[in-house]
Amino acid sequence: MTRRSDAKERLLASTLELVSERSYAGVGVQELCEHAGVKKGSFYYFFKSKQDLMLEALAHQSRVIDQMLFAPALASDLPPLERIERLFHLTYEFQKPMTEKTERVRGCFFGNLALELSTQDESIRHCLDRIFRTAVASIRNTVEEAIKTGDLPEVDAQSTAEAILAYWEGVILLAKVRNQPELLKKLARGAKEIAITGKKDAAG
Amino acid sequence: MTRRSDAKERLLASTLELVSERSYAGVGVQELCEHAGVKKGSFYYFFKSKQDLMLEALAHQSRVIDQMLFAPALASDLPPLERIERLFHLTYEFQKPMTEKTERVRGCFFGNLALELSTQDESIRHCLDRIFRTAVASIRNTVEEAIKTGDLPEVDAQSTAEAILAYWEGVILLAKVRNQPELLKKLARGAKEIAITGKKDAAG
Repeated sequence: MTRRSDAKERLLASTLELVSERSYAGVGVQELCEHAGVKKGSFYYFFKSKQDLMLEALAHQSRVIDQMLFAPALASDLPPLERIERLFHLTYEFQKPMTEKTERVRGCFFGNLALELSTQDESIRHCLDRIFRTAVASIRNTVEEAIKTGDLPEVDAQSTAEAILAYWEGVILLAKVRNQPELLKKLARGAKEIAITGKKDAAG
Repeated sequence: MTRRSDAKERLLASTLELVSERSYAGVGVQELCEHAGVKKGSFYYFFKSKQDLMLEALAHQSRVIDQMLFAPALASDLPPLERIERLFHLTYEFQKPMTEKTERVRGCFFGNLALELSTQDESIRHCLDRIFRTAVASIRNTVEEAIKTGDLPEVDAQSTAEAILAYWEGVILLAKVRNQPELLKKLARGAKEIAITGKKDAAG
């Protein structure tokens, strides 16, 4: 890895850390450069602006969350509905070390930015919308498998997947405001129940 | 109403508007005073700091949301579980005029601040935690009534109410990132299904 690419990695890591601890508006380019140990000139070699950096940080973190959380949670070694419950338990495991370090539940990087920036920055909102749609698609595959195996009747798989993702983000939000990561384990079962929603939608 | 109390009202209204459109970090005292047409000296007559203003704005908005949204949604003219579904439909009605004005779903004032400030400001986090606990208590009353009427079996009313509130916040988050207030109507039914969660918890 060259010196330059290492600087870029460090900038992305600092963005994730500082923006998660505070907010997008609460962190400036100067501070990001100092935290990453990168000169401001190098920053502008890699990124046109803070927005540009944030878009790349989102794409990067999206790959991390997919590989570290969604892929193992939704892997086919468990029956489909249990995988959805596992997503909440693994999210707890994912939040726990960060919580121990700072004594604060950081929450979901995407959810945090969605609420801060959706009214202000259309490029970032579109990027987040794509990330959430990808997550919905992964959950939808699991819901469709549950229909095939007979664990669920003919539900509206898209609505069901959207409801499960919304619930996941909401539980993380509540865990953050309470500063109680354990809430992710306590409320994990609710996700399986939401899958039943689609059944009622289809019937009603 | 005296001139002074009018200035305070205007500062609270400007806080709600500007912080909802952007974020807490994105709005300064100077701009709030200009937007409200209030001199900076008057600001510090009413509030010690921006944090102090925000705590009062949260208390004020909490009463508004309780009177305008939770009280009518959970009123006893409908069977209990239908009231919970109505909470989502009324939230849609509540978001719609704001969305039409700015063409952006503003989301929940409390949820927005919860994700922005829970890692940074313990006074505001505690205030939000109390507001969310009050909302959970209202939903819990409805869940307990559903148990009494036989619409729900013996569920864990507290967990169920927490799950419903989390789902509500998550659906608002998804509606905001998609900029689609209609998602609140589309996913409303999921809330009734979450009520079943408690049943499984009790059984499992």
